[in-house]
Amino acid sequence: MKSEITIGLLGFGVVGSGVATILHEHQADLSYKLGVPVKIKKVLVKDATKKRDTALAQETFTTDIDELIEDRSIDLIVEVMGGTTEAKEAIERALRAGKGVVTANKDVMAESGFDLLKLADENKCDLFYEASVGGGIPLIRTLEDGLASDRIRALTGIVNGTTNFILTKMKHEKKTYEEALAEATELGFAESDPSADVDGIDAARKMVILASLAFSTEVHMDDVFVRGMGVIQDGDLELAEHFGYTVKMAGSAKKDEDGIEVAVEPVFIQNSHPLASVNNEFNAVYVYGDAVGETMFYGPGAGSLPTATSVTGDVIAACRNLLLGVNGKRMHAPQFTCEVKNDSQIIGRYFHRISIKDQVGVLTNLSSIYSKHGASIATVVQPEGKPNNEVDLIMITHHISRQQHQNILQDLQQAPEVNKVISYYRVEGENR
Amino acid sequence: MKSEITIGLLGFGVVGSGVATILHEHQADLSYKLGVPVKIKKVLVKDATKKRDTALAQETFTTDIDELIEDRSIDLIVEVMGGTTEAKEAIERALRAGKGVVTANKDVMAESGFDLLKLADENKCDLFYEASVGGGIPLIRTLEDGLASDRIRALTGIVNGTTNFILTKMKHEKKTYEEALAEATELGFAESDPSADVDGIDAARKMVILASLAFSTEVHMDDVFVRGMGVIQDGDLELAEHFGYTVKMAGSAKKDEDGIEVAVEPVFIQNSHPLASVNNEFNAVYVYGDAVGETMFYGPGAGSLPTATSVTGDVIAACRNLLLGVNGKRMHAPQFTCEVKNDSQIIGRYFHRISIKDQVGVLTNLSSIYSKHGASIATVVQPEGKPNNEVDLIMITHHISRQQHQNILQDLQQAPEVNKVISYYRVEGENR
Repeated sequence: MKSEITIGLLGFGVVGSGVATILHEHQADLSYKLGVPVKIKKVLVKDATKKRDTALAQETFTTDIDELIEDRSIDLIVEVMGGTTEAKEAIERALRAGKGVVTANKDVMAESGFDLLKLADENKCDLFYEASVGGGIPLIRTLEDGLASDRIRALTGIVNGTTNFILTKMKHEKKTYEEALAEATELGFAESDPSADVDGIDAARKMVILASLAFSTEVHMDDVFVRGMGVIQDGDLELAEHFGYTVKMAGSAKKDEDGIEVAVEPVFIQNSHPLASVNNEFNAVYVYGDAVGETMFYGPGAGSLPTATSVTGDVIAACRNLLLGVNGKRMHAPQFTCEVKNDSQIIGRYFHRISIKDQVGVLTNLSSIYSKHGASIATVVQPEGKPNNEVDLIMITHHISRQQHQNILQDLQQAPEVNKVISYYRVEGENR
Repeated sequence: MKSEITIGLLGFGVVGSGVATILHEHQADLSYKLGVPVKIKKVLVKDATKKRDTALAQETFTTDIDELIEDRSIDLIVEVMGGTTEAKEAIERALRAGKGVVTANKDVMAESGFDLLKLADENKCDLFYEASVGGGIPLIRTLEDGLASDRIRALTGIVNGTTNFILTKMKHEKKTYEEALAEATELGFAESDPSADVDGIDAARKMVILASLAFSTEVHMDDVFVRGMGVIQDGDLELAEHFGYTVKMAGSAKKDEDGIEVAVEPVFIQNSHPLASVNNEFNAVYVYGDAVGETMFYGPGAGSLPTATSVTGDVIAACRNLLLGVNGKRMHAPQFTCEVKNDSQIIGRYFHRISIKDQVGVLTNLSSIYSKHGASIATVVQPEGKPNNEVDLIMITHHISRQQHQNILQDLQQAPEVNKVISYYRVEGENR
């Protein structure tokens, strides 16, 4: 039996320093839980001479990754450097050197997760990545273990804190998108270039990871339908509220006999749904399983210590496996091939906000577009016209396919009575 | 390596039949996940000849527990028979026979969990009990693994579905307690004798299990402060709503430098707190950790298939350990001795509803009672008097100890201006 576990840390940014803090402050608890101490031996950084506020000795820091990978006394590599190419290479080298790896890197896991997990299996090493999705919320573990016996049918998640923060401020404090984004940036919830967040790319990566696990299949970025929050128009949030919904940037993954569908887009969520009241920078993932029914997991989606909690949870699990000699025994090969549904198979309800000319017969003509495409309408609201003889018409459809929806949109945009389709949203989470 | 895992099932009621259903319907998935099939070999029941709607063969059922315990080919005992003495004895016998045990029995785990876990350790067997708390929500696993690296400070839970269902119906549908209880009974959410639920005993058992794990200590039923929902008076729910709160039967466990406190009681929860919108028969546990901050785990707290999902999740974990030869390697001995705080160390805010005589000087006299005991008042509301010259006075205190609160109550009850203290509640979840 090993007398201690030795860690090499790749990166010492927000998450890396959090990991060091937790391992330092909780070292007695960890030793108690594992029976042996856990030590950080080396930390890879860009500048090894920089003064840092840490309990780690200065000589722990190095700029040479070989000092970690080639040190046979290092059992476990914790990758929290971020980025893609370099991080992926580092993980590959660590696994090939027979070291367990814990990573918080959603970009790498979304892009190359299957290859890396395969490599880990081949080298009989653990590769854990709890912190790659949902910050401090133990989601990966819950999907892998807690709900292991169930068949998951749907998973809807608010998995990007930045966009959720912005939408919360816009809804509850009536801020504009720009004001809310500025506040998010100031508080450190948004990157200086927020495009990966607001365009839905960050959420799509996380949904790739979650959907792959939930459905035991290989989902790739190309399989995800993505619409950024830029499509949200002035007045949409108030309209949603008026009809009993909240606009959320949500990821959704569903599976039925036809295959799977994964999307990230701004959606209307009924206010009675537990996801509707997930506010600010918080994340939550709602899981619907055949047997378990509805469950939801809520918590901080980012941040130094929350994310470090997940990383350190993985470190404990990896250490335990190392000590028991059962590392790398998890089978990761997906059980099913990934059949992605086409647009005709993807069913949902849609909310349409259409600027129309306020004239006789317009409703008849427009509703005939819906019936032509086989769509029935659940709700129509035509408010009083504006001074310029324009009016916003609201249509909420019953269940239609994405293809039907796209056909209707196309016809609406060409109809002479229509100024333009101002906005549209899928309605999410109604059929619970 | 074993070529299959063989299970003996104790009990075939609501949960037991759910376990059999999941193991049967998901057998291909389970074989894939574990590499070997999982089979139920024997089921202990009261009447082995009864016709049952199940895929299991008639000869699987037996009334003789020895057929399970003494069958060396049975690897794992799943105890879902309920009750206390008999179930505990069965678990003990199984562990002594070297079999792993999965149980859904909160009564046994709350009462004898430490002894049984110790026995499991001594016999190098696994004893898993995810289903004992929170039905289908993976709480035990989350506290043991997901948040393993964190230090949990507080855990607040709606862990009894019956009382939550009743309170939801009373609040949202304005039903009386009796009407709501009748509906809960009809829908199968309440037992024919609902006293363990409404008196808080069921929730207290679950809090014993959760608090012990969260704080790595030995909490016992005697350590829990329990107040049943019978103290809720007509009009209290509306008053709570008026002040921005929701009344919930909640369990709370906290730890600070003075020690721990565990309570189950009806409390006022601020409407903005995620627990306030946990409705109907759903359960949720809100966990506050030093590093992770706020997390919440939500789902069905009971029911055949949800609970069976947790049981079967445990079965998979136990099978995996058996196949890897690392069963019984979990260290269960609590890290800390349990120091329960006394009433002077337990701090909270309180809501008081006091029927007073509507006369000059009453507010001065009553508020002097609060100041005499060192309590400052956050809110006073004295509505218009009733025809009979009585009036309900509302006082919400700042933070005081439970001892101060009890002293104030005693003095209030003896004050000549007071008809009676109609009701009082602790205010929960404000200092997030």
